[in-house]
Amino acid sequence: MKRRKFLSTAAVGAGAAAAASTLPKPAISQGIKEIRLVTTWPKNFPGLGTGAERFAQRITQGSEGKLQAKVFAAGELVPPFESFDAVSGGTAEIYHGAEYYWQGKSTGFNFFAAVPFGLTATEMDAWIHHGGGQELWDELAADFNLKPFAAGNTGVQMGGWFNKEINSLEDYNGLKIRMPGLGGEVLRQIGAAAVSLPGGEIFPSLQSGAIDATEWVGPWNDLAFGFYKVAQFYYYPGFHEPGTTLSTGVNRQLWESLTGDQQALIASAAAAENNFTLAEFNARNNAALNELVSTHGVQVKRFGDDVMNAIGNAAGQVVADAAAGDPLTQRIYDSFIDFRKNAIAWSRLSDQAFWEARLLPFQYERT
Amino acid sequence: MKRRKFLSTAAVGAGAAAAASTLPKPAISQGIKEIRLVTTWPKNFPGLGTGAERFAQRITQGSEGKLQAKVFAAGELVPPFESFDAVSGGTAEIYHGAEYYWQGKSTGFNFFAAVPFGLTATEMDAWIHHGGGQELWDELAADFNLKPFAAGNTGVQMGGWFNKEINSLEDYNGLKIRMPGLGGEVLRQIGAAAVSLPGGEIFPSLQSGAIDATEWVGPWNDLAFGFYKVAQFYYYPGFHEPGTTLSTGVNRQLWESLTGDQQALIASAAAAENNFTLAEFNARNNAALNELVSTHGVQVKRFGDDVMNAIGNAAGQVVADAAAGDPLTQRIYDSFIDFRKNAIAWSRLSDQAFWEARLLPFQYERT
Repeated sequence: MKRRKFLSTAAVGAGAAAAASTLPKPAISQGIKEIRLVTTWPKNFPGLGTGAERFAQRITQGSEGKLQAKVFAAGELVPPFESFDAVSGGTAEIYHGAEYYWQGKSTGFNFFAAVPFGLTATEMDAWIHHGGGQELWDELAADFNLKPFAAGNTGVQMGGWFNKEINSLEDYNGLKIRMPGLGGEVLRQIGAAAVSLPGGEIFPSLQSGAIDATEWVGPWNDLAFGFYKVAQFYYYPGFHEPGTTLSTGVNRQLWESLTGDQQALIASAAAAENNFTLAEFNARNNAALNELVSTHGVQVKRFGDDVMNAIGNAAGQVVADAAAGDPLTQRIYDSFIDFRKNAIAWSRLSDQAFWEARLLPFQYERT
Repeated sequence: MKRRKFLSTAAVGAGAAAAASTLPKPAISQGIKEIRLVTTWPKNFPGLGTGAERFAQRITQGSEGKLQAKVFAAGELVPPFESFDAVSGGTAEIYHGAEYYWQGKSTGFNFFAAVPFGLTATEMDAWIHHGGGQELWDELAADFNLKPFAAGNTGVQMGGWFNKEINSLEDYNGLKIRMPGLGGEVLRQIGAAAVSLPGGEIFPSLQSGAIDATEWVGPWNDLAFGFYKVAQFYYYPGFHEPGTTLSTGVNRQLWESLTGDQQALIASAAAAENNFTLAEFNARNNAALNELVSTHGVQVKRFGDDVMNAIGNAAGQVVADAAAGDPLTQRIYDSFIDFRKNAIAWSRLSDQAFWEARLLPFQYERT
C-alpha cells in the first residue's frame, strides 16, 4: 500500500493549517488526561481507521476514562503525514500510522513497517517483542521525542492487478505499475516504470491504460476498490510488503507523565490491537478472495520463480542501500537480517511445512 | 503437548484438596477486587507460565490495582485440571490454560485449542475474533458459567523426536510414540501404539527404549528437555497441533460484576498476551532450532507426503467423530470447517507463497 499521496489529497490542507492555531488543549482535571490521537487514515478506513478507533477505545475504557483518547482521522486535526511531527512536537499526543511514512526522517523507520522480501506479520512480532527490535526502535524514535509500539498488521499483501500476464522478467520492461516506496524502487531496478499514485486515481488510470498494473493491499480492500472490473489478472505473492506493521507513537512528555500502570495499559492496548487487526485482515481477505474468484471470475496467478528470484536480488540491494550511511539504521538492518535468517529456518519447518502438508489430497471434511 | 498427566503428578494432590477448604476469599474494599488466577502450568514454565504471569500483570497494572490478579501455578490452589471447575464454581475467578484440557466436559472445547490438520495461530485468531468462533465459544462456555478468551499461542508444534527414520506408513506399525489427545487417536488409527506419558517420564522412557518416539512442543521447550541426547531424528511438521491456542476463562459472576470498562481491559489483556506469547515462541524457537542443529547435530527430517496424506485422512475422521452427537459441537465443527476452507485458499496465496518465494536462491544479504 503506502498512501502518502492518496492521503495527502484527502487532507483538508489549508483548513488543517488554520485549525492548527486553534487546536484543542488537553484537559487535565481530576487526573483525567485528554489524548489527541491523530492518524494517517481516512475515518473508519477498513482495518486501518477502524483499528485506530479500537486502539483508542482500549485506552479510554481500560483506564476507566482517566485517559480520554479521541481519534482524529487524516486531515481532521493535521494533514496525515504531519502526524509524526504533530506528536513529536506535542500538538497531538499519539499517532496511529505506519512507520514507512516517516522514512524521510530516517530510512531506519522502514524496518518497522515493511521490507521487500523481509519478515511476515508473526515474524515481525517475534523480532520486535522478543528479538531486539523494540529496543532499536525505541532508540530511533527517542531521537524524535516518541515512544513507539506495534499496533496492527495487514498480513502479506497481494502482488497486484495486471492487464497482461507476467511470464518472464522481460514482461516488466517498461511496465507502468503503481507501487510506491522501496517496492517501487526494486521494480525500477528490474526495468519497470514504477510510479506512485493516490488511491483514488488508481482505478481510472488502470481503466484508461495510463498504467498497466497496480498493487494496493489485499482481497478485502482491493474488492472494495473494484479493480476486478478493469484488470483480469490478480498476482501473488506480494514481495514488497510481506507483513506491514501498523504502529503508534506516543509523545515522550505525555509518556513520562503517565504512571507505570498507565504506560502498561497503552502497551497492552497496542499489542491487543496488533492481534485483532491482523486477524481481521486475514478473516476478511479469506472471504473477499472467495468472492473475487467465485463471483467476479478473477484469474489468480502466481509469479514465476525466475521473476521472483530476480526481484529478490534487486530487493536485497535496495534494502541494503536503504540502511547504509546511517550507523543506527545499519545496526537495525544487521539485527533484522540476522533475525530473518533464523526466522526462515523456523518458518520452513513450522507454518510453511504444515501448510504444504495441508494441501495434500487427503479427505478432511466429513460434512 | 497436552500435559494432563504431567501436570497432575506435579499437583500437590491431597494437599491441594485440604487447602481448598481454607481458600483465601476475594477482598472487596474501596472497589478493589482480588482475582485468583489459577493455571494449568508449573510456575513460570517457559512461554506458558510466564505468559499467564504477564496476563495477570496486564490486568493488575491496567486497572491501576483495582483488579488485583494473583497467579497460582498448577497445584498451588487447586490441582491443574481442576482449574476449570474451580473457576466455574467460584473457588477461583480466572483460569489460564488450554481448552483441550476440558474435553471431558465437551469435545467442543478441542476446537478452541488445537485440531489435527486444523488452523494455524493466525488462522485461529481470524476465526475466533472475526469469523464467528468467539460467539460459539461464548455459547459453549456459558453452559459452564464461564466467559472465555484466546490468551496465547504456541504456534505450529514439531512432529517429534524419533529413534528411527519414518520412510513409509509401515514404519508407524506398532511404533510406541508418546502423543496424547486427538493426535494420539489419529496415530492409533494408522497402526501406531500411541501413549500418554507425563512430561517428566518422557526422557527416561525414550532413553530406555520403552518408547520409540515422542512429541512435546517445539525447539525452545524441547531443547530444555534435552531430547537431542536420546533421539537423533527431529521430524516436522507437527500435524497434531498446528497452532495451539492458550486460553483464559472468567467466572461469570465476576464478569457480570465488572464495569464495562473493566471487561474491556480484560479482553485487551488477553488479546495482548495472545500477541506476545506467539511472538515469544516464534523468537525462541528460531534461536533454539539453530542451537539444536549447529551445536547438537540434530538431524531435522520432513515427513514424506504419503505418510502425511494417510494421517490427514485419519485426522479428518477423528475430528469429525469428535464433533458428532452433540448439536453445539457439530455447529462449532461446521463453522471451523467452513472457515478452514477459506483460510487454506488465502494462506496459499499469502504467507505460504511468500515464504516459498523467499527460499529461492537469490542473494539477499549484503553484509
